[in-house]
Amino acid sequence: MYQALKERVLKANLQLPEYGLVTFTWGNVSEIDREKGVIAIKPSGVEYKHMSVDDIVVIDLEGNRLEGSLNPSSDTQTHIELYKAFPKIGGVVHTHSRHATVWAQAGLDIPALGTTHADYFYGDIPCTRQLSADEIASEYEKNTGLVIIEEFNQRGLDAMAIPGAVISGHAPFAWGKDAFDAVHNAVVLEEVSAMAIATRSLNLDIKVQEELLDKHYMRKHGKNAYYGQK
Amino acid sequence: MYQALKERVLKANLQLPEYGLVTFTWGNVSEIDREKGVIAIKPSGVEYKHMSVDDIVVIDLEGNRLEGSLNPSSDTQTHIELYKAFPKIGGVVHTHSRHATVWAQAGLDIPALGTTHADYFYGDIPCTRQLSADEIASEYEKNTGLVIIEEFNQRGLDAMAIPGAVISGHAPFAWGKDAFDAVHNAVVLEEVSAMAIATRSLNLDIKVQEELLDKHYMRKHGKNAYYGQK
Amino acid sequence: MYQALKERVLKANLQLPEYGLVTFTWGNVSEIDREKGVIAIKPSGVEYKHMSVDDIVVIDLEGNRLEGSLNPSSDTQTHIELYKAFPKIGGVVHTHSRHATVWAQAGLDIPALGTTHADYFYGDIPCTRQLSADEIASEYEKNTGLVIIEEFNQRGLDAMAIPGAVISGHAPFAWGKDAFDAVHNAVVLEEVSAMAIATRSLNLDIKVQEELLDKHYMRKHGKNAYYGQK
Amino acid sequence: MYQALKERVLKANLQLPEYGLVTFTWGNVSEIDREKGVIAIKPSGVEYKHMSVDDIVVIDLEGNRLEGSLNPSSDTQTHIELYKAFPKIGGVVHTHSRHATVWAQAGLDIPALGTTHADYFYGDIPCTRQLSADEIASEYEKNTGLVIIEEFNQRGLDAMAIPGAVISGHAPFAWGKDAFDAVHNAVVLEEVSAMAIATRSLNLDIKVQEELLDKHYMRKHGKNAYYGQK
Repeated sequence: MYQALKERVLKANLQLPEYGLVTFTWGNVSEIDREKGVIAIKPSGVEYKHMSVDDIVVIDLEGNRLEGSLNPSSDTQTHIELYKAFPKIGGVVHTHSRHATVWAQAGLDIPALGTTHADYFYGDIPCTRQLSADEIASEYEKNTGLVIIEEFNQRGLDAMAIPGAVISGHAPFAWGKDAFDAVHNAVVLEEVSAMAIATRSLNLDIKVQEELLDKHYMRKHGKNAYYGQK
Repeated sequence: MYQALKERVLKANLQLPEYGLVTFTWGNVSEIDREKGVIAIKPSGVEYKHMSVDDIVVIDLEGNRLEGSLNPSSDTQTHIELYKAFPKIGGVVHTHSRHATVWAQAGLDIPALGTTHADYFYGDIPCTRQLSADEIASEYEKNTGLVIIEEFNQRGLDAMAIPGAVISGHAPFAWGKDAFDAVHNAVVLEEVSAMAIATRSLNLDIKVQEELLDKHYMRKHGKNAYYGQK
Repeated sequence: MYQALKERVLKANLQLPEYGLVTFTWGNVSEIDREKGVIAIKPSGVEYKHMSVDDIVVIDLEGNRLEGSLNPSSDTQTHIELYKAFPKIGGVVHTHSRHATVWAQAGLDIPALGTTHADYFYGDIPCTRQLSADEIASEYEKNTGLVIIEEFNQRGLDAMAIPGAVISGHAPFAWGKDAFDAVHNAVVLEEVSAMAIATRSLNLDIKVQEELLDKHYMRKHGKNAYYGQK
Repeated sequence: MYQALKERVLKANLQLPEYGLVTFTWGNVSEIDREKGVIAIKPSGVEYKHMSVDDIVVIDLEGNRLEGSLNPSSDTQTHIELYKAFPKIGGVVHTHSRHATVWAQAGLDIPALGTTHADYFYGDIPCTRQLSADEIASEYEKNTGLVIIEEFNQRGLDAMAIPGAVISGHAPFAWGKDAFDAVHNAVVLEEVSAMAIATRSLNLDIKVQEELLDKHYMRKHGKNAYYGQK
């Protein structure tokens, strides 16, 4: 019944090892079908090379399993919260990609330092606050989603303009208009994270110019965008 | 007589170059059959691409060769001491993987800085003290094992909860419930070592929250673990 | 009509992913035919693995499209300005290769630190000044070219002796006598950028000796060059 | 007449790109036949993928070409000086491998920081002094060899115990008992260089214990060596 959605989600998950974003099974991609109110997501702890379309789990927005015999990703509740809070997103990715995880571990925002960043992320990529002991003890994965959303709300950020975040002490989440766009943004997040670490080793203070950030983001995403073939 | 054990150990050794953990022959994996009281281990100085199951050496816990015509790994005595001291482990890996070796050379514990670490290692990964001149001069490889064990005893660490260590001035050892699990942990040890070096370049003081360390370790390894398909 | 030129430009563009210089579509190569007064360049936002010779766009020096149905690279105006100002260059490359981009983001010249650099770049590789808000708001890509040219003019640099630059807050451009030579220089620019970042982590002040810079550059490029088979 | 020697030298040269030690043609390997008094060496500026056995150049110890139609490597005179000064070496390698070159550019010895280093290099790997303006102006490549030899003589180093060096502002040379052993040592030199850069970022002062350096070097190279199958 959800065959096409599951095939897309399988394919998007298989892009994670292709792009070098994952070690072992440390990553998961989901996509939502908002009309049907269902999410397809990677099963928990299954190796990419053995994954087939039948392993993909379909759930509703309360997390009930509708199709598939495996447990969904242990991070499923985080995906659900992001879909609920950010109505325009269609795909979510979680990885422990090396350099984005470094910023998460350092507890620091990934600063916008150049146009590579600005082409996809319209400003610093936020690092959340730490979760409280209570938030960790109970409904941890749900609270991981909530702390991302809180960060976007408090800073007044648009989730479509900054399609990713890092969780303090944990790792990145990225999202996009669908599963493939989310993976694309996860690749960019990793690349700009690596660039930013090395940039900070040469220059502790620099930030990208505001005008350059605007220009590059709008060149690709604004209503007068002129990058590509559209 | 030990064909199945030797085949497993061959396969686990061949995973080292697959995962990028070794240059030349700088690594070795062993597995113990505790019922039979025997260990199968890589021969010393043999290239991975030329290694066959007949090259794997089978020894008893005193280091006597029971099967195979080659010399066992020069690190065999370290493996033996670890098997003797840590009764639950079934496999041991030694490599000179780049980033874990950097922590060994720096003489520093690999600090627990995030959930990637916490998913597998329940706390800092210890760096041993330096061996004394006497310990180096006589029974060096055995003493390398003993100094790891001493570190675990003095700190009150559980070898199954922290399945690895780095030897001051030398390189890492990792272990696990069998040879493949040990290799798995060696891969994680290398990855968290790389992340920790870069994290320290951004933030000199940060440590992972205790609650997050507990949560992630227990989510995968505690009795109420809910990661994966178990 | 421009088939041979387009085939060369396709082939040079495909070298970018081969040499690991690009993520996704983040790069473009052009070549000029100065006799005919035309430039062939990569189309905007097209994936390398799907690119065919018919996708390559041919334009004149005012940017008018002469052949091809796709939009030329959004960086086309930068290429045009470089061809106009530097009459000996025949090919131009733009990438966001990781380590060169780091120097751009840091807003720093890539210092000449050794003979690897000196073999191709006869001195520091300049980082441009930041563009003004006006230069960004209007004719941004053209102004990106002009700010490179300004830097070469103000410093009295020879574009053939220093075949590349980094744009402050953005990324590198490289050039050469044709498209393939430009790609070659872009590879070198990335490599010396990586080496220079790590060198600065060990030694904050060092520069290559002037005599060594002279010797190596002239050994390959001077009129008495004796490197290679010429 | 020198077919076997040339085939060995071709094969050893082709190992350089295999081991990731070279960009483009930036490397060369030679081997000496001391009985015949001839050296086979890579031609200058020829790409590895197009190199055949007929391209390998055979010269005598005065640098006269005995066989082959191409120019020998521009670094040939450095190789010759090393063969003359170090009578036990049979092969020489020059590369611009990234991390070893970083130490050369920083003008610093590669410090012995662990057993990975000690297994192959019995102490710090020397960085030469800078060449004088005169030494650069005249017979530069010969003087590059002489400055390495001077460093070994002044420090009382044994070229077989420390089979490599870095030239200040330039890049590494490594050597060994034959061409393949020299390449092997060049791979180790690159790996320990990378480890040492990262180690210094964590710990500015540490050195390997003398006793550990002795133990590991002697375990592989001393008269009572017990590593491997010998």
